[in-house]
Amino acid sequence: MTERTNQRKPATGKAVRRGREQRRRIRTATPVVHLPTLVHETPFYEILDAEDVDRIHDASMRILEETGIDFRDAEALDIWKTAGAEISGERVRIDRGLLMGLVNLAPESFTLHGRDPACTVRVGGRNTIFAPTYGSPYVVDLDDKRRYGTLEDLRNFHKLAYLAPGLHVTGAITCEPVDVPVSQRHLQVAYSALKHSTKPFMGATTARERAEDTVAMARIVFGEDYLRQHTVMTSVINCNSPLVWDATMLDALKVYARNNQAVLCSPFVMAGASTPASTAGAVAQLNAEALAGIAFGQLVQAGSPMIYGHYLATVSMKSGAPMAGTPEISQMNFMIGQLARRYRLPWRSSGMVAGSKCNDAQAAYESNMTMSAVLLAGANYVFHSAGWNEAGLSASFSKFMLDAEQVLMFRKLAAKVDLSDLDECVDSIRDVGPGGHFLGTDHTLRNFETAFFMPELLDNNSYEQWLAEGAEDANQRGLKAARAALDRYEEPALDPAVDEELRDFIARRELELPDTVE
Amino acid sequence: MTERTNQRKPATGKAVRRGREQRRRIRTATPVVHLPTLVHETPFYEILDAEDVDRIHDASMRILEETGIDFRDAEALDIWKTAGAEISGERVRIDRGLLMGLVNLAPESFTLHGRDPACTVRVGGRNTIFAPTYGSPYVVDLDDKRRYGTLEDLRNFHKLAYLAPGLHVTGAITCEPVDVPVSQRHLQVAYSALKHSTKPFMGATTARERAEDTVAMARIVFGEDYLRQHTVMTSVINCNSPLVWDATMLDALKVYARNNQAVLCSPFVMAGASTPASTAGAVAQLNAEALAGIAFGQLVQAGSPMIYGHYLATVSMKSGAPMAGTPEISQMNFMIGQLARRYRLPWRSSGMVAGSKCNDAQAAYESNMTMSAVLLAGANYVFHSAGWNEAGLSASFSKFMLDAEQVLMFRKLAAKVDLSDLDECVDSIRDVGPGGHFLGTDHTLRNFETAFFMPELLDNNSYEQWLAEGAEDANQRGLKAARAALDRYEEPALDPAVDEELRDFIARRELELPDTVE
Repeated sequence: MTERTNQRKPATGKAVRRGREQRRRIRTATPVVHLPTLVHETPFYEILDAEDVDRIHDASMRILEETGIDFRDAEALDIWKTAGAEISGERVRIDRGLLMGLVNLAPESFTLHGRDPACTVRVGGRNTIFAPTYGSPYVVDLDDKRRYGTLEDLRNFHKLAYLAPGLHVTGAITCEPVDVPVSQRHLQVAYSALKHSTKPFMGATTARERAEDTVAMARIVFGEDYLRQHTVMTSVINCNSPLVWDATMLDALKVYARNNQAVLCSPFVMAGASTPASTAGAVAQLNAEALAGIAFGQLVQAGSPMIYGHYLATVSMKSGAPMAGTPEISQMNFMIGQLARRYRLPWRSSGMVAGSKCNDAQAAYESNMTMSAVLLAGANYVFHSAGWNEAGLSASFSKFMLDAEQVLMFRKLAAKVDLSDLDECVDSIRDVGPGGHFLGTDHTLRNFETAFFMPELLDNNSYEQWLAEGAEDANQRGLKAARAALDRYEEPALDPAVDEELRDFIARRELELPDTVE
Repeated sequence: MTERTNQRKPATGKAVRRGREQRRRIRTATPVVHLPTLVHETPFYEILDAEDVDRIHDASMRILEETGIDFRDAEALDIWKTAGAEISGERVRIDRGLLMGLVNLAPESFTLHGRDPACTVRVGGRNTIFAPTYGSPYVVDLDDKRRYGTLEDLRNFHKLAYLAPGLHVTGAITCEPVDVPVSQRHLQVAYSALKHSTKPFMGATTARERAEDTVAMARIVFGEDYLRQHTVMTSVINCNSPLVWDATMLDALKVYARNNQAVLCSPFVMAGASTPASTAGAVAQLNAEALAGIAFGQLVQAGSPMIYGHYLATVSMKSGAPMAGTPEISQMNFMIGQLARRYRLPWRSSGMVAGSKCNDAQAAYESNMTMSAVLLAGANYVFHSAGWNEAGLSASFSKFMLDAEQVLMFRKLAAKVDLSDLDECVDSIRDVGPGGHFLGTDHTLRNFETAFFMPELLDNNSYEQWLAEGAEDANQRGLKAARAALDRYEEPALDPAVDEELRDFIARRELELPDTVE
């Protein structure tokens, strides 16, 4: 594997120009806006008192001390043994002193770099960033048809993530490109993310060599020295709840941690099936799982950036189906936020998640039920912020656009309530007087563009105007917006030499990698 | 007007039985469930610190002291003059000592009685009740057609409110029955609410005599002595923002306050048009308006129950259209909750409000964006909790059903996180161990019915099963649920003598009232 030894400044996001048509489009195109990290100016919601947070912490510690957790990987077991944990077969029992000592090595917050510095963000503390959906085998495409995802769909999702002002991460397998052989898929995924967007991206975790290839491609783009010192990607390492970290995930974790790239240590919670049927019990378990993963990561590479995380669904006790948007998911998010702050760890949640089979009221009820709690809980890395539907089985282009606009609204919910103009408002009320209106006051004219959020994809016109404009529902407007955004998309600049090196790398690896289906 | 002098025990809600078919339906019908008042066991969200709450309070006091507020009603001006306010034309300037002394007379909480004691609820403090949508001229009917509302639609909405476990109030003009002459409409509205449901209802406020007729009808049902001592209805008194209480609304307020029936003193806020383009400025103004209304109500009848309230929309500065579900509405709700608690007043908000022209993702995004904040803000009377769409211009049967289920989910969000079984969960995790599942544990079997909310109108089945079952979206399921509920509806018992007296009263008043269109 070729590794670049020179440090290369990341390419910035200037638009590539190709001829007259391209120039015309640039002149008329809306400029690409990258909103900065959201910094919470309003308080977090705390559902538990400090004593109850301690009780859950204590339950998690007892789980790891008494029951222990499986690390199904020989190297990981050796590492734990050396660190002083009690090993029995694949079972690792970790005493709370050892565990918390390791957890404390993980940084409270870190910078996540884009290849355009304007896309660089901060993760942890009072900062929140938003990432799109991930991992769906199906798409609901630009013609509103549900089918398997393709590389073309994936590229389109990466382009839309680049254009979405409120999304901070390009993502990775927003949908699975099933037209690419599984063994080679990670190469095309990383290439698309790096080429079509300048935002931080996400890495492959389905095999050690796929993680290594992703890091190698990042080296080509960012330069080896730069990458050693800068985190440019996040990768999802799932714990198989209950209490199993498997070799595949641990291998990927080791690769990323050793390269100073962030991982999300994410128990995959189907509450009631993979955890007890209890919100507090589920949180105690996932807390144990996530902390064990982070502690292991710190043994691999002390100080490497890690995100305490989870994926949460509750299970229907009638059908066994996973449910989204339930109140218990919101309560668990509030609790997890409090635990993460206790541990001074950046934490991840899932935002606009839904279980609907189409982009209807159900999809939106569930998405906003959960996102409202995730925002007030103060999650630092809001995964699945746009496009997730059908319990993750499909990625919807229309929902992606509608969700991405909701993200902009949630940003404003976390902005400080400005009282600085209160005296001026009182004066304005005096000037207008009873029965008047404020549409033409000086105060209004100065503030009308920013005072109240004005959505573009939610229709507030009259029924008659809506009818005259085609009576489109939100799903149709979302589809139209996705097509329009792709039409105006301009590829950000990428040094042609870098591009060529990436392509050479991929071509070589494709020859080396067998065309497997798993 | 006949007034009953004997006290009559309110009729309870036993089902009327009419023959074999009716009996068969009763045997197979789901029992009608009336959930009690929601008592918040989780903390309220406080967006402002105490000092900023004081600043807004002070701004409101300055508005009433310096600018004053119009009371466009001679009797009201006399009452204010006697109380010591400064009168200039219709303008009333109220000093903060006078104002707050009056506000303090209003009860911090009160009991709102249904004609079935099982429907009696508590308003104020940590209690929340939910009321359906109100006032729409249009309906989106049981066949998904948008058209003017009729008396038949209104009766159906009252039946659905009676059947909805989480709704505590029958409502009043859920839709306008445009097939009934305007001058007589209030009689049919009150009759329908009293006959088709046993929950607390709402009164007419569009004219003094209409309020008096509503009280007279309540006397017939509840008995005169009972009604004097028990609040059985709430009525919406809107302030015409900015700073105008008009004679019609004040007349209705006087009737209800003198009869010990609750009023919602509700500034109608179109933030940016009827208030300054500022969340803090809008709240300062509506706070002044609501407090002036409540203070006036206490001058009319000290100690009469009043609800501090508002209707909130932000105005699009592009089109002038009112917007629902914006982040500023959520922030205002949080602020208003803090002010209401400062004043120890029960407060009203609007829950599932939306501006969509159909029951789509927009309707649900907006509804849950707002309701999430309203719930955590601790609103005591959540108006428009089911069915409101199109900025209130249409009441949707389908949305009514979907929203009413969301209300059940929001209830659970306010329930205490139970940590009592944490030790048992830790034991259960030990017994199951890494890689197992919890579906058959003793703990799960004991808790599976209550641990996680299982919605009926949100589909969590597989795509294939959903296709096989007709591929219905949430709107179609809501329509089907509304039709099914109406099919199983059983009229609660009403003493035939009371019913006859109500009908006689209505017949006599209809003869007396001209058939007007306003």
